[in-house]
Parts: sequence; structure tokens; C-alpha cells
Amino acid sequence: MSELDLFFENKMNEECGVFGVFNHENAAELTYYGLHALQHRGQEGAGIVTSDGKMLHQHKGEGLVRNVFTQQDIDRLKGIHSIGHVRYSTAGGGGIMNVQPFLFRSQSGPLGLCHNGNLVNANQLKVYLESEGSIFQTTSDSEILAHLLKRQRGDMLTALKESLLYIEGAFAFLLLKENEMYIALDKFGLRPLSLGRIGDNGIVVASETCAFDVIGAEYIRDVKPGEVIRIDLEGITSERYATTCDQSMCSMEYVYFARPDSDVEGINVHQARKNCGRILAQEAPIEADIVVGVPDSGLSAAIGYAEEANIPFEIGMVKNKYIGRTFIQPSQTLREQGVKMKLSAVRSIVKDKRVVLIDDSIVRGTTSRRMVDMLREAGAKEVHVRIASPEIKFPCFYGVDFSTYDELIAATHTTEQICEVIGADSLAFISVDGLTKGVGRSPKLGKNCGQCVACFNGDYPTYLYEDVKCANKEVK
Amino acid sequence: MSELDLFFENKMNEECGVFGVFNHENAAELTYYGLHALQHRGQEGAGIVTSDGKMLHQHKGEGLVRNVFTQQDIDRLKGIHSIGHVRYSTAGGGGIMNVQPFLFRSQSGPLGLCHNGNLVNANQLKVYLESEGSIFQTTSDSEILAHLLKRQRGDMLTALKESLLYIEGAFAFLLLKENEMYIALDKFGLRPLSLGRIGDNGIVVASETCAFDVIGAEYIRDVKPGEVIRIDLEGITSERYATTCDQSMCSMEYVYFARPDSDVEGINVHQARKNCGRILAQEAPIEADIVVGVPDSGLSAAIGYAEEANIPFEIGMVKNKYIGRTFIQPSQTLREQGVKMKLSAVRSIVKDKRVVLIDDSIVRGTTSRRMVDMLREAGAKEVHVRIASPEIKFPCFYGVDFSTYDELIAATHTTEQICEVIGADSLAFISVDGLTKGVGRSPKLGKNCGQCVACFNGDYPTYLYEDVKCANKEVK
Amino acid sequence: MSELDLFFENKMNEECGVFGVFNHENAAELTYYGLHALQHRGQEGAGIVTSDGKMLHQHKGEGLVRNVFTQQDIDRLKGIHSIGHVRYSTAGGGGIMNVQPFLFRSQSGPLGLCHNGNLVNANQLKVYLESEGSIFQTTSDSEILAHLLKRQRGDMLTALKESLLYIEGAFAFLLLKENEMYIALDKFGLRPLSLGRIGDNGIVVASETCAFDVIGAEYIRDVKPGEVIRIDLEGITSERYATTCDQSMCSMEYVYFARPDSDVEGINVHQARKNCGRILAQEAPIEADIVVGVPDSGLSAAIGYAEEANIPFEIGMVKNKYIGRTFIQPSQTLREQGVKMKLSAVRSIVKDKRVVLIDDSIVRGTTSRRMVDMLREAGAKEVHVRIASPEIKFPCFYGVDFSTYDELIAATHTTEQICEVIGADSLAFISVDGLTKGVGRSPKLGKNCGQCVACFNGDYPTYLYEDVKCANKEVK
Amino acid sequence: MSELDLFFENKMNEECGVFGVFNHENAAELTYYGLHALQHRGQEGAGIVTSDGKMLHQHKGEGLVRNVFTQQDIDRLKGIHSIGHVRYSTAGGGGIMNVQPFLFRSQSGPLGLCHNGNLVNANQLKVYLESEGSIFQTTSDSEILAHLLKRQRGDMLTALKESLLYIEGAFAFLLLKENEMYIALDKFGLRPLSLGRIGDNGIVVASETCAFDVIGAEYIRDVKPGEVIRIDLEGITSERYATTCDQSMCSMEYVYFARPDSDVEGINVHQARKNCGRILAQEAPIEADIVVGVPDSGLSAAIGYAEEANIPFEIGMVKNKYIGRTFIQPSQTLREQGVKMKLSAVRSIVKDKRVVLIDDSIVRGTTSRRMVDMLREAGAKEVHVRIASPEIKFPCFYGVDFSTYDELIAATHTTEQICEVIGADSLAFISVDGLTKGVGRSPKLGKNCGQCVACFNGDYPTYLYEDVKCANKEVK
Repeated sequence: MSELDLFFENKMNEECGVFGVFNHENAAELTYYGLHALQHRGQEGAGIVTSDGKMLHQHKGEGLVRNVFTQQDIDRLKGIHSIGHVRYSTAGGGGIMNVQPFLFRSQSGPLGLCHNGNLVNANQLKVYLESEGSIFQTTSDSEILAHLLKRQRGDMLTALKESLLYIEGAFAFLLLKENEMYIALDKFGLRPLSLGRIGDNGIVVASETCAFDVIGAEYIRDVKPGEVIRIDLEGITSERYATTCDQSMCSMEYVYFARPDSDVEGINVHQARKNCGRILAQEAPIEADIVVGVPDSGLSAAIGYAEEANIPFEIGMVKNKYIGRTFIQPSQTLREQGVKMKLSAVRSIVKDKRVVLIDDSIVRGTTSRRMVDMLREAGAKEVHVRIASPEIKFPCFYGVDFSTYDELIAATHTTEQICEVIGADSLAFISVDGLTKGVGRSPKLGKNCGQCVACFNGDYPTYLYEDVKCANKEVK
Repeated sequence: MSELDLFFENKMNEECGVFGVFNHENAAELTYYGLHALQHRGQEGAGIVTSDGKMLHQHKGEGLVRNVFTQQDIDRLKGIHSIGHVRYSTAGGGGIMNVQPFLFRSQSGPLGLCHNGNLVNANQLKVYLESEGSIFQTTSDSEILAHLLKRQRGDMLTALKESLLYIEGAFAFLLLKENEMYIALDKFGLRPLSLGRIGDNGIVVASETCAFDVIGAEYIRDVKPGEVIRIDLEGITSERYATTCDQSMCSMEYVYFARPDSDVEGINVHQARKNCGRILAQEAPIEADIVVGVPDSGLSAAIGYAEEANIPFEIGMVKNKYIGRTFIQPSQTLREQGVKMKLSAVRSIVKDKRVVLIDDSIVRGTTSRRMVDMLREAGAKEVHVRIASPEIKFPCFYGVDFSTYDELIAATHTTEQICEVIGADSLAFISVDGLTKGVGRSPKLGKNCGQCVACFNGDYPTYLYEDVKCANKEVK
Repeated sequence: MSELDLFFENKMNEECGVFGVFNHENAAELTYYGLHALQHRGQEGAGIVTSDGKMLHQHKGEGLVRNVFTQQDIDRLKGIHSIGHVRYSTAGGGGIMNVQPFLFRSQSGPLGLCHNGNLVNANQLKVYLESEGSIFQTTSDSEILAHLLKRQRGDMLTALKESLLYIEGAFAFLLLKENEMYIALDKFGLRPLSLGRIGDNGIVVASETCAFDVIGAEYIRDVKPGEVIRIDLEGITSERYATTCDQSMCSMEYVYFARPDSDVEGINVHQARKNCGRILAQEAPIEADIVVGVPDSGLSAAIGYAEEANIPFEIGMVKNKYIGRTFIQPSQTLREQGVKMKLSAVRSIVKDKRVVLIDDSIVRGTTSRRMVDMLREAGAKEVHVRIASPEIKFPCFYGVDFSTYDELIAATHTTEQICEVIGADSLAFISVDGLTKGVGRSPKLGKNCGQCVACFNGDYPTYLYEDVKCANKEVK
Repeated sequence: MSELDLFFENKMNEECGVFGVFNHENAAELTYYGLHALQHRGQEGAGIVTSDGKMLHQHKGEGLVRNVFTQQDIDRLKGIHSIGHVRYSTAGGGGIMNVQPFLFRSQSGPLGLCHNGNLVNANQLKVYLESEGSIFQTTSDSEILAHLLKRQRGDMLTALKESLLYIEGAFAFLLLKENEMYIALDKFGLRPLSLGRIGDNGIVVASETCAFDVIGAEYIRDVKPGEVIRIDLEGITSERYATTCDQSMCSMEYVYFARPDSDVEGINVHQARKNCGRILAQEAPIEADIVVGVPDSGLSAAIGYAEEANIPFEIGMVKNKYIGRTFIQPSQTLREQGVKMKLSAVRSIVKDKRVVLIDDSIVRGTTSRRMVDMLREAGAKEVHVRIASPEIKFPCFYGVDFSTYDELIAATHTTEQICEVIGADSLAFISVDGLTKGVGRSPKLGKNCGQCVACFNGDYPTYLYEDVKCANKEVK
């Protein structure tokens, strides 16, 4: 129920999760559990494509993994190789058509494809490809790679490396042929992607390592920026499609997206958040009675803050865990009378207390305002808000969908003004340095410690095309 | 994912939640949100009966509140008074028939009835009532009260008080007539039940206060042991049906059942659990690197333990929050390979660490064993289990369904033996005194501080009939 | 899509179907197919209670047989005896509670019960039974028998015969004990009920014989008015509960309710309808080009009319067979533009033709008007309406729910006036004599040939209580 | 429950239905009712694409029209133009991906496309298009046209005419752009397609005229073989893409596919079938007591046969109308005991009778055998089978999926042998001449009277490619 949660309730978001298995007899079933572990990265749709060595099989649908697949569906997904996808939002057109993996049929055999990320030159590439005769059946960027591939010569690995040179932006691609899997990561490594081992000879790949733990796989290493991997029954081949690679892992993966039990580039997410909480306590101390984290994404930072500040950590806000899609919204009358469906403050914990409220981020400020109100109604004497990420001032073009400048409160308000808007007694954000230090990234990785912090400071790693920028006039 | 969670996956359990509203124009809608807040007390079925002053309306079904009721259903539940129920399990016969509230029709008008608890003389009463001509349509104890009422004379309040004298056991009853609501609590106050105020003249009643917070109601007081309340448009009348009342609130409400944001008899549940964690740290200290709580019910105690022991509290186990009814179970092969659907240990947190694992209770020991294994597989160097409730050695006859002696590991094993069974490096339970002290109940309330601790020490507050005991031969 | 079809769309109706199997290893499965064959008698709910000789098992739900029962449900309904029920309407209160069979629990063993028909002294009996301590949980008449039974002494067969003496009205009851089945029919035999044989020793009972054909059972005979049958593993015992019995089979069974492939008291329903069509052609001839039957219930009579009148029978109206519950209703605009969801006239068949339109009955006249309009819009030159039942002038108190006098157009209009209301060129109804002759019943059975024709001539076989009549002031 | 019905239960079939509306404010809603009227042409999936003049909107899903679309879905399909599709089978790969209309996105605007029919050079075209860079996302033939279109120059109408020249086979295409609709029919007119008028300026197009009657549209004319139509807000333009056109309407449309209330090329289907029944009575008379039609597709012919032969037409077989997808199949035991789920013979009608059984066709003979058995079990003395279409001896390559030679009983058996296989007392098929005469087509239209009778005599109108034929070796 963080600011980002609320934000995503209202807006389309391209954040997704991918998962693949190569050479394991329970490929579809493993993918099912893997995608289930990645469910937090996308709840709007899910799909699996498997290969039995000769044919590719597909099943996909809208909704949660557990609702999309029945036992029968999994049984029908025969084969020992598999790729799967969970999708954040199918809003914005296309519905089921945009749910991945896509399955392309051709005389040279079928191709399964799925993608996490966002391209910044999608429009340019579509214009070019259509002028060459391509037809697009989805509104998704991800379809572009298949059309580029079709136009290359040579073996698949060469064709893939050629094709990726056309593409600018953030991407983690999984491709499946009858007996090969291909994995590709953009040259800035903007999206997480890890490799693991399962059973005797099986290889797994996932957006987050939490998917490995769930299926009993062993983590090997992260895929590297600009790396292209080919897996077949003979083994693994790794190449680079780009020479100049520059690690820029999305900071929001540490701040909000990834599950606390995942390791992103070897760094545990819960630990990273807890450390940020500690640093936040150093950067922005306050005298208070209790520390409360916004469930669930503010909890790790709150524990860190509490330990560092030596103030008791309390469960002052509780989330109802039975919330789901079919829920009836409260009538206007009841909303005015204060009916809360999802989150409530615990009166007997916060009453007459000076509360430090820890959240992971502020996007538009509306949720923060609601939280502060809720705590005050429950009797909190003071509410001091501390945010475990810096001010979000710039849109993201790489798949996190707070893409319009106007909606970012920190783009147009000072911290003091935001504090007033949300009604807090005080407000502080962690600094960009504090964040990278908290995450624990080495300065050797570059001035941003190998993290993309563009949404905080406007320092975008990729070239930005005019049509992308013009949708956000205020960017530079 | 505590021991109790797992336990309840396999066995029927009578624990339930009730909610009522009197004199509020959004009665059905408020009951919907109230029941939703009480959803943790029963996920198998839900129902609402409303009164529009002339007629009673009913809707019920199997499943979660949000799936049982559509907007249309709520719209059809006209009226300003309402009672509702969430049911733990409809397994064990009856299906939809046993979902409450029941609605009894008669020439003297309809009667809605719902119940949380378990009677110990149900069989005796059924034999008696059937000999008098009663027919039972459900396998539920709760139907008995309606038949007893039918056989009394005088006004409803008198008849209710008379009827309750027949009944032995744990109960919180809500009854609804066209323009009156009746509330009754057993003379030991074994189940929680609280009164609140909403809007100008509305009265609410709920199993837990968390339901008040959600709908913006104000807590007034708890219903007292042996109290019978009549509410009509003139006001509230309170009487006692029994003279000797002896407060014995079920300890398991504090330990496991109630939501952390509820206050049970004025004591916040999270605080109670955290205090128990502190006391557990005093009673059973251990040298360790991190404290990990079993999500969700071990978390509060773990925070308390960590603070008291001055060991960092870490999120070393994570629960997948997208689990639901339709989930596919892993195949035998994958289960052997260690696929975990619901809960996983966080390798990078626990690896090479000495872990204190805090859980709320141990019933049969199988889940605890699984948790310990999981932590060891994830690399934990030592696993010390600390349990925030005493050893459960005796069955419960008041609605908590660990009712067969043989299944209680602590009834037949010493603590050392249990430690061995679950594979921990050490194991300790909080003492009964520690528990009551942690909850914060005054010794003035009696030797058990007004709590029922029968499942720990066999000291049952009510008389136990032979047929109840013989189902559990080992009970004295 | 007859008048009755439309009528039943708007009003509650008590017409139902019952089915039972005794001593067959596939009891639940046979009941499933039997109920499916009786589905036309009730689409709102269905249920089955089985006995395995020791316990009774139950499953029921709202909707069609095929939606209420899954393979798993059928598998769980263990046993060799079974009774089942399909219900016309759950509107009017009670919902799932009123779906039968009911299952009553008691110390002397469980009792399953289901019922087709309607009692005329239900209110009187409920007042009496409640004064004796009974509580009713449904709004159904059918529950009364269980309460009466509870108050009798002696063995079950004696108690049942005693209880039935209290009951006035139309009924076909099936009762199931652990190892016995009881069957009872009212003394006027107002509802159809037939006995059959299946496998080596199995007995079946059903509202209509079409259910026997479907399961490969052999018809033995119809249950007789006033007969009470007890079936156990030793054999069948038949007795009478009443001495003066007077066969009065509901005419509407022949006219509309029963399936054309059923035999009701040895008379095939299609043949009876076709004969009525022939007699109608004799009683009310007309010069015309084609004969069109209203699908489906007017078709048999139309074939008879066409053969007798020597006018070609044509399919001039077609029903869409994919209609179902979830269908979207046309918007007002489209309705005005003539969008028809269910039924349409075939322009190329009826254009410029003089059409005889045959329907089974007219209740309120609104559907007939719509049909005539439809044919005219499709170009019919003349439309002559012929109805294969007499004018319905009196309400039915025995289970056919056109129970208010005011809604019966023939109660307040002459045939000429009805003709004008429905816009036909001419209109004629078959006479009461024509109907009984067409059905083929012998005058030896009494002045109405052993049929109940009360809705045509007001000659009710049973006593009518004041409270029943007063709901329909105009009845004598 | 004809032979074809049964056949289609087991095999994939490409028969489909299309519907379009241009310039009507309730475009989506009209398409919904239109598709519902065409539901008999495809029950496996349905979809609608609408245009609001600027954007195209899409919704599709698997199952019946009434289950695929909710009121909300229809409301979201904004616009005044619309095309829709019902699909026979999604078996054989692709699932939801193959449900039409397809929606192709491009810089030059979106394109909606749907198709009824089957191409015979699909493989050749796919090889060619892929070599040019096309990627196919479905296994459907229908996608080919979009890729061909993309490669043409000039305006859309010109491009469409160019593209169609590449395509060989049976097709009725509807294409939708923002403000234009295009309609195309193959040069043999193998599939039916009719134009109509609705409201003030609206144009409708449908596979069958029954869809016009349902929505109150007025029939204008049928689309002609080789015709390409462009509709925009200015009006209708008609052109030909091919110079040599040769009317060859699929005979099976008259025999089985089309609804009896549709007119195909101005000939009413019920009348055509009834006439065939008459001619069959002349060609193959037999002495008998009753004529029985196999419901539903044998009924019209049976009425004709009965009238001509002057033998009474009786309802000797009845179909259960509540059959649906979720039905439980009878266990092996019950199947052996003769449980019939769908169809049953009416004992009291057929017992001791000499029966003429009229069916529309025989494909493999298994259903016919079952019907004859059923009639005999019900007591029929003799069973004479008369089939209202000639022997099916050759596979169809134009969309009717009895495409393997081996499964066609008439391809390998003489009539006498078939008679023996199905166990009839006698068997006769209508002659090819009888069929065309019965349908009422003029010999001026060519030697087959403008009908395709290839499945009866092997006289295929189009060129057949080797790869198509080799799948059916026996085809000359």
C-alpha cells in the first residue's frame, strides 16, 4: 500500500517478470511456480510457451498465475523447455493480445518470445519495419524484435545480435526455439535477470532470484549488460552484442519492485532497504515514540530506521490481506464516514504517540496524505514522514510508468511544500548518495554506482528520442 | 504460515466471526466491510441477514466475503439492521446449509441467528429437543438456541435468558428480529465480542475491534461474560442471564486468532504478542545473529524478542501473498526437489547465521520441522526455535479445533523430544505465567488472570460431558 | 416460447420434478441423468440426496443440473439409493435454502425429502405446528411433512400415512431413509409419478417417464392417487392413506408441462397434443395456406391440425437455441427497431400467406400479441390463432402459478375481445370436451374424464381454504 | 443430432459466421445480436471489432456469444461501424489467438479482419510471404490476406483486389478501417454472404439472412462471386476482382449448415430441405406407418417426405435441449446399460411401427447406426433410413471439415454395405439431381446448377494443390 501501489492502481505500467527453464522434464510446472514467485511484478496477465523439442505449445490468459492455469493447462504444456511471463497491465489496449509470451509461426519453425522492459525507439523501428512490409498485431514493443530477427541473415545467434543493435532502451528478452533458448539483456543492464541451475542438467533464468528459491534451483550469476546467451543441449554460449556496456540497474528494483527475498546483482533487497532505513535515520533523525512502516514495501526500511534510531518498531498500520479484484467499492456515504477497505491504522498503537512513518517513495503524494490523515484520526500526536528513496523528479522511459512529468509531485514542489500537501509534521527523503550507499553499490561502477537514478536526477543512460521526450515536455 | 495455519488446512475448525449493525441506513454495506475485516476468522463461508423493519432478507454462500456478495446482493439486502457471519470451515458436512446466519420463519415473525463458539452439551440438548418434536436441518450447534427459544414463554428477552441457561460452552450469539437485535455472551466470556457506535444513533457489535476501525465506528466497551443485550429503536437494555460469571478469555485469541490491530478486552493484540516475545527473550535467551519471525503470526513476538535480546530482527522468511484456493499443488517429483509454494527462506539473510526462529505455537510439529529444514537448506548455521505460547497439551472444546489428544505433539512428547522431532538446535516455549503476564492481564481476575489456558494446563472452565471427553480418552 | 414460457419468465412457479433410485450401484449418476431429463420441469435449482445404507449425503445448488453438479460432486454422493429434485423458481424468497431435497437430521437418523406440488392448507398447518414448537427454516410447503412426521408414533409407514391425512392439495413426495424409500401421491393424483425397474433389482420413480427412457429403465406403472409406497431391500409394499380417491390429473401436464416423449398415465404427450390439434381443426376450421406451430410446445398440435385440415405444416417461426441466463437484453432503441432475441418469424415462409398459428395456451395474451405482430411484420396476409387448450379462466392452487385472477385474460375477456387484443384475424380455443377427448381419457373416470380442468371451469377437486381464496377474490 | 453434429463433436471444422454493420449508432450491440443469430455456425469463439471513426476497439473470447460478451464489453466497443465473427473450433492449435476478427496495427492505421472459408493455397502463400519478411502469429489462413495487402501499392480497394488474385479457395472476408468497410467473396461464391439495410443509412452484411430478421434489418441482395465491395460514409462501391466467376454455392449450406429460416441466394433453407424430402419420397418410396426426422436438421426433410408419401409425421425422437459444455459423461457401466444423454426415441410413438427415419446426411455412419439401434430398442418393427443428401464420397477443401477420405463411409462402401453397417431395413440417398432440383436451382447456372457438389461427385471448382491433395491420397 505504498505510494507506488496506489499509483499503479490508476496507471498502466510496463514492469513485468520473465522466467525460463531449459532441459527439465517438469518445465511447464517449474515455470508455473517460477511465475507465481514473480507475481508481484505483474498481476494482469500470464502466459507460458513450452517446447517438446519438436513443437511449441502455448497457454495464456488475463489475471493471476493461479487463475490463468489449471492442472489440465499445465499438463498440455508438454516439453522440457519453457518460457513464461507475468504482465503488469493490459489496460491501454490489446487485452489478451498483449499478454506474453508471443508465439510466432513460420516455415523455419516457431518462435516464442517474452520481454521485460521498455524500448525508447519503438516508434522509429515500427515505421521502418512497416515500410518493409511488417504487420503488427499487438501494441506491445516486444513484437518488434521478432520482425527485426526475420530480416537478418545467418544463424539465430548472429541474427539476434544484429537485431539488438537496432534497439534502444531497457530489455530482458527470453526467446525459445524448438531446442534452443536465447537470453538477451540491454547494454545498461536496466532490468534484473539471473541465471541458475536445477536438477542434473537444467538451466533456469528469472527476473528475480526469489523464483529460484521457490523451485529449489541454485543461483549461478546475473546476466551481464549487453550479454546474449544461447542455450542448447550441448551447453551455454555467451557473447556480447554491444561493446560499450555501462551497468545501470534500475534503482526502483531495490526501492520497490523486487521482492525482499530476492538478490539483485548479489545484493539482498531486504538488506538494501533496511540499510537505506538506517542511513535515513542518520540523514534525517527525529525524536519520536514509535517507528511505523507502510505495509508492505516500507517495512524493511522501517526496521532499519528503528534499529538505528533506537526507537521501537511497531505494527501501526495493517493491510487487509483478503483484498482482491472482485471487491465492492464503498458507497460515497460510507467513504465520507471513513470506511477503509485495504489499510487501517491501529488506534491502540499510535494513539498519543509521536510516529515516524516510513514509506518507500512518494509519487503524487495522494496516498501519503491519506496515511498521515489515517494516523492522525487514530490519535497520533505527531506524524513525521521519512521516505527511503530520493525525490522522484523525472519520468522513467524504461518501463516504470510514472511517465508524465506533471504527475510527479517532487517535480513541481519543494520538500517543504510536499510536507504541507501531505499534512505531515516533518518530511525527509534519503539523498541519492544515501540510496546508493544503502544499497551497497561500489563507486567503482561509475558516478551513480552502476545504478540508474534518472528519475531522481534526470541523468538518463540512453539516448532519448524526440517523440518520447515531447510526451514529457519538461524533461530538459 | 504458522503451525496453526497449517493445522487448519487439514482439519475442520469452528472458529468464526460475527458482526452486527443496528439502526444505520447502510446496514448491509457496513456488515460487508465489517465481515471483510473479520475474514481472517473464517474463509469458508459468509452470510448476511438484514431487516427493513418489516421483513428479513438473507444472502449467503461459500467462499470469501468478496466472492460471496456482489453489489447487487448488497443492494437487495435492504434495511437498517443487519447481522453477519464468517465461517471457518464447512467441511465435515452440511456445506452451504451450515453457513450462517440462519433465518428461521414463523407466524410470530422471522428470526436471524449467528454464533461464534462451540457448545459442550449440544448432543444432550439435541436429544431432549427432538424428543419434544424439533427437527434439525443443519449439523451446527447454533441451531439449538432457536429451538430452545421456541419452547419458552414470555417476551423475547426473558425467553432468551431462560434458553441460555440450558446451554453450556463457548458462545457469542447475535439474533435479529424485525426491529430488535439481541446479543449474548457465555458466562466465561470465552469468545471476544465488542460494542461500538456509528453515525448518529447506530450501534455495532463485532467479534474484534478491527472491524470498527475499518468502518469508522467508535469502540464503546466489550460485552461482559453472561451478559444479554437487547437493542431496539428506544435504546439498549443490558441484563445477565447467569449470576456466577468467571472471565476466561480464550488465550488463543491473543496468540493466534485475532488480528494484530484488534483490542481484545482493551488489550492490543500486537502489543500482547510483542510483550510475549520480550518475556520469551527473558525466559529463554540464546546467543544468535538474527531473529526471524514466522509470517504472519510470529512477527509481532519476533519484534519483541529482537528488541529485548538486542539481536537484529530480519525478514528471513517470506510468504507469497498471491496464494489462493485455485492453486495447483506441486507434483511429487517437484515436491521432492524442494518446490515451495507458499513460504520460502531468504538465503542471503540466513546463510551462515545463527537464527532464532519465533513462531506463535506448535500443534503437531510438522510445520515447525519444515521451517527448520527450510532455514538449514538456505544455509542457517544454527536454528533456535522459540514459541510465544506454552505447550498445547489438552484439546479445546470451545471452538478451537485441535480436539484430538493424539495429534498434540506436546501431549505426548517432552520439550527435548519435540526439539529433536523438529530438528532444531534448541527449543523453548513461553511459560503460562509468561503468557498471561505478556498479555498483561491482572491476577485479580483469577488464578489464570481471566484467561482460559485449558489447552496448556487442562484447567477447563466449564463442566465437560462424558460424550465430549470420551472422544478424547486421554483427558483426565 | 409459448404464452406459458413467457409467463413463467415473470412469475414464480412451483412446478417441479422429482426422481428416485433404490438399490442401484450408480444411484447418484442415474439421478443426475434422470433429473437432466426432467430439466424442463424446473431450471432454477437442483439437488440430490443419496444413502449408502448408513449415512445420507447431499449436494444442491441454484441453476441447471449440468451446472450444479461436477463429476466430483457426483462421486462424493456415495450410495445405492438416491432422490433428486429440480425446482422451477427460487424467486420469492429463500434462494438456495428452498432448493430440495431437504435433509433433516435427528437422533433417529437422517431423512431426505422432496416434493412436487402445492398444498392448500399450508398456512393452517404451519400455525398448528409452530404452536407445538416447530421452527421452519424455509418458505417451502414441503418442510411441513417432516414436522408432521416427527409428531406421529409407530413405524415410519404408519406415521407417514397418518401425516398425509393432515395435508390437503397436490403432492408427489419422495422420502429417503438409510435403507428405505417412501413414495406418496395425493388422493386426486394431481401430479404425475411413475414407477420403473432398472438393472437386476433396482427400482426407479420419476415425475415423467422420459426419465426412464434416458437411463434405460423399464416402465412398470403409474403411482395411484392416495397411494403410499415403501421400498426396502426386501421389496415393495403398497398401501393407501385415503379411502376416497378421485383421479384428477392436471390437464396442463398434457397441454404444456410434460415432455412430448413422456407417457402420463399411459398416454403419450405428443400424441395427446397432436390429437388435440386434430380436434381443434374439426372444431374450428379455417381456410388457410400454411399451419405454423409456436415452438416448441405448439408443434405437436400444429402437426395434428395440419394433417386433419390438409394444410401444409411449415416451420414459420424459429427459436434461437443458444439463449441462456447470461444474455444481454437489447437496449430500448434496438427493441423499438424490432430486435428479437429468442424467436423470429421466417419471412420467406409466411410472406403473403394465410397463416394458422397454433399455440398451446393463452394466459395473459401478451405473447400471443407479439407472435401475431411478428408474423404480420414478416408479411403474413392473415393470421388465425388456434389454441390447443380451453380458455384459462380460474387460478390454480395446486402448483401451476397463474394464481391471480386478474392476470388471466380469459377470466375478464370474451374470445372476441381476446382476438382483438392479440390482433388476430380469428381466434378459437379447443373445448373442454375436445381437450379430454383429444387426450383420450375415458368418461368412466368421472365427469372430467379423470382430469383436473379447474383452471378452465372452476371445478376444483379439493376443498379451498379462505386464505387461499381471498388472495383471489373473484373465485366463487 | 444429425450425423454431421456428431461428426463435428470429434473433428475440427472451419465453418464460421461473419457479420458487419456500417454506420449505425448501436453497431456493437447489433453485431452481438447478429452473431447470436449466427451462433449455429460456430460455438467455439466469438469476437467483435468496432470503429468510432478514429480508433478500432476489440473484444473476443472462447465460447458462446452470450458468454464472451458482458454488457460492459459491449459498452466499451464504441463506434458506428463493426465487424464480428463466430468460430467453429479453436481445437488444433492457437486457442484464443485464432479467434477472429484479427486486429492489425500499423502507422497507416489499424485494420480489422475476419473470414469465413478455407484457402487451398495457404501453404504456398505463407512460404512466399515469409521469404519476404512476414511473421505469422496465428495458425489461421485468414491472416494471409493482411500480409498480402501490406505488400500492395495504391488505395485500399485496389490493393485488396490485387491481393485477392493471389488467393485460391473459399472465402467471405470482412475488413474494417476507421471509416470504411470492405467485403469480398471468392470467385465461386462458395460461402453465403448477404447485404442488408438498417435504420436510415446503415448497411449490414451477414453470412446468413436469419441475422437480418433478428435485428429488424431489410435484405437487399446477396454478395456476388468475385465481388469486392467498399462502403464508406459516401455510399457503396462494387467491383469485381476476377473476371471469370462461376457460382458454386456449397450444397452443405442447404443440407446442414444454414438455419432453416435463412434464405441462401434467395432460396429459403427450410423450403429447400422440405422439397428435398418430397423428392426423396418420390425417388425412394417405402411402405411405412410413420415418418420420423432426426432432430433438428432432419425435421424439414421429414415433413416434406411425410406430406409427399402421405404417411403421418411423428416426433419419434426427442433431443434434450439443456445439453451444454459442462455436462458429465456417463460412466462406462451406465453407457452399456443404455444411458442416453442427448437424444432418445419415444417408445410409445415408435413401438410396433414401421418407421421411415429421415436424416440430412451420413458421414461416417456411426450416428446413424446409433439412431437405428435406439429405434429398435424402443420397439420399432422396421427402420427405413432415407437421407436428404447424396452419398458423401469426397473430402471438402473449402471449409467443411470431413477432409480425410478414409473417414467417409460412402467413399469405401456401397449403399447396400452402408445399410448393413447401420443396421437399417433399407437405405436410400437422394440423387445429386434430386438435391439440386429440391433446392430449386436453375440448370442455367451450369451443370451443377451453380452449386458445389464436389463432396458428392469429386467435381471441385478450384484448382487443387498437391500438398492439399496428398493429405487425402485417394482423391484422384
